[in-house]
Amino acid sequence: MPAAHSVPVAESFPDWSARRCDQVERALHALLPPADAVPARLHEAMRYAVLGGGKRVRPLLVYSAGELVGAPEAALDAAACAVECIHAYSLVHDDMPCMDDDVLRRGKPTVHVAFGEANAMLVGDALQALAFAAIASARGHGVAAESVVDMTVALAAAAGSQGMAGGQAIDLDAVGQVLDRASLADMHQRKTGAMLSVSVLLGAACGQQAGGRASWLARYGHAVGLAFQVVDDILDVTGDAASLGKTAGKDADHGKPTYVSILGLDASRHLAAELLAQAREAVAALGPGAGRLGDIAELIVMRQS
Amino acid sequence: MPAAHSVPVAESFPDWSARRCDQVERALHALLPPADAVPARLHEAMRYAVLGGGKRVRPLLVYSAGELVGAPEAALDAAACAVECIHAYSLVHDDMPCMDDDVLRRGKPTVHVAFGEANAMLVGDALQALAFAAIASARGHGVAAESVVDMTVALAAAAGSQGMAGGQAIDLDAVGQVLDRASLADMHQRKTGAMLSVSVLLGAACGQQAGGRASWLARYGHAVGLAFQVVDDILDVTGDAASLGKTAGKDADHGKPTYVSILGLDASRHLAAELLAQAREAVAALGPGAGRLGDIAELIVMRQS
Repeated sequence: MPAAHSVPVAESFPDWSARRCDQVERALHALLPPADAVPARLHEAMRYAVLGGGKRVRPLLVYSAGELVGAPEAALDAAACAVECIHAYSLVHDDMPCMDDDVLRRGKPTVHVAFGEANAMLVGDALQALAFAAIASARGHGVAAESVVDMTVALAAAAGSQGMAGGQAIDLDAVGQVLDRASLADMHQRKTGAMLSVSVLLGAACGQQAGGRASWLARYGHAVGLAFQVVDDILDVTGDAASLGKTAGKDADHGKPTYVSILGLDASRHLAAELLAQAREAVAALGPGAGRLGDIAELIVMRQS
Repeated sequence: MPAAHSVPVAESFPDWSARRCDQVERALHALLPPADAVPARLHEAMRYAVLGGGKRVRPLLVYSAGELVGAPEAALDAAACAVECIHAYSLVHDDMPCMDDDVLRRGKPTVHVAFGEANAMLVGDALQALAFAAIASARGHGVAAESVVDMTVALAAAAGSQGMAGGQAIDLDAVGQVLDRASLADMHQRKTGAMLSVSVLLGAACGQQAGGRASWLARYGHAVGLAFQVVDDILDVTGDAASLGKTAGKDADHGKPTYVSILGLDASRHLAAELLAQAREAVAALGPGAGRLGDIAELIVMRQS
């Protein structure tokens, strides 16, 4: 195992997280075509959209689930790049004028502001294709072709019309509507939860069969997926643009139903704590190798941005 | 083999083509989520974008290459659906106001006109994910997982930043520019040729190893891919909206370089004939099983819409 990947026993979570973020950054840098490869402006914009920013929550979930099952590092890099490319494409498209019309993302002008709308559309489209190229490349790194096909199916489902894209469509239709709590949870389980859950699944799929752990991994993914959105809704009300790196208060301004608008702030915080407890229960059941999954659940709920 | 798939020896090309178009229509109908599945409006719009229209050139290439290698019908359906979903998504995004801003497609209002821009964006995004789900499903129909991963890699490359999406980016940058013939060919080889070529490749990959035929299949795909665009450029000048099912003369109006604008009409027709001759040469080399590939090359060059 290369030295860069050796894991000191006492590595703190911030150190682990920084090391893993560096790792996925390098892998994304290598995966994305060079900024001078034809068509250069498209590739420059793709790199702008993906590199050098973001919390990399989805890649961290891939790596932490992969550590639980002893997965090969290069395969985890492939899966981490795949989920991050899907996430980045969704942000680029979501920020466009016909969607959320946002001008600031990760503290920088959004892609359509920096490169124009047509390029932003193509950046998102090309990043989705690249995500599937990335997941397929896991085959070359110790994952059986059968598992790679399973991973492709799972990624397509999480990204598609009954996953992330479907959640966004429900979100569009929900503007100005009154949703009940179950409908809101369903929307978020698709819009955000599906890609967070599949990140856990893909990391685990890079290693040994998860076996009896599969249902605990799924419960963990479900809990952190929903918790992520609840906390997002809380931060949309309590956060500020400087720490969020994006415009605060957008959802309330747009008349979008949120956990805060439906449950209120206190009950939303209580729900986030409850979901964290569910995630912790799953982590305990998964055993000592699941420590990083536990750390990420804390990160997702305790974050301030 | 089910009766619907039996091939009468003397089946004419129009009969074959109509039968194969019905076949991919049924397969797409089954692949696309029902119009009442949540989120219903998104699924309705996806079905609107994909079903009941189009020449289905890419599926016909899949089936004809598949016949050459004796591929299982269900696997060919999967590959045919995959390339048609990618094609349909590209049309939906390409028609949007920030791209070509077209209101008419296949004689119907474009998706963003009928369903709004935000839904059109999500329709395209979800159709791309569905394409990768479709190609992965070939595994369940007699194609080895190793081949399915190869097919995923090929589809991602053909659709992505160095294939179709890249060609569209070059096209954007080319508005008002003077391109030489080589640059124009490069743009079209990416924008249209890559997906036509990969259709041939995917059909062949569903069956026995193409072996010595692989290079002839590639030459055939290259020739018909380019011919398709040359003829498109000719029809943009000589066709009318009624037979094209879309607005004629758009490219010239937008100052886009085309074969006609660079070579003139006569030389463009000569080039189309030359590419048809190259395709015929490949078909002859591929042997008697390649008859349908020959028919499709004629169709692509001789079409009036």
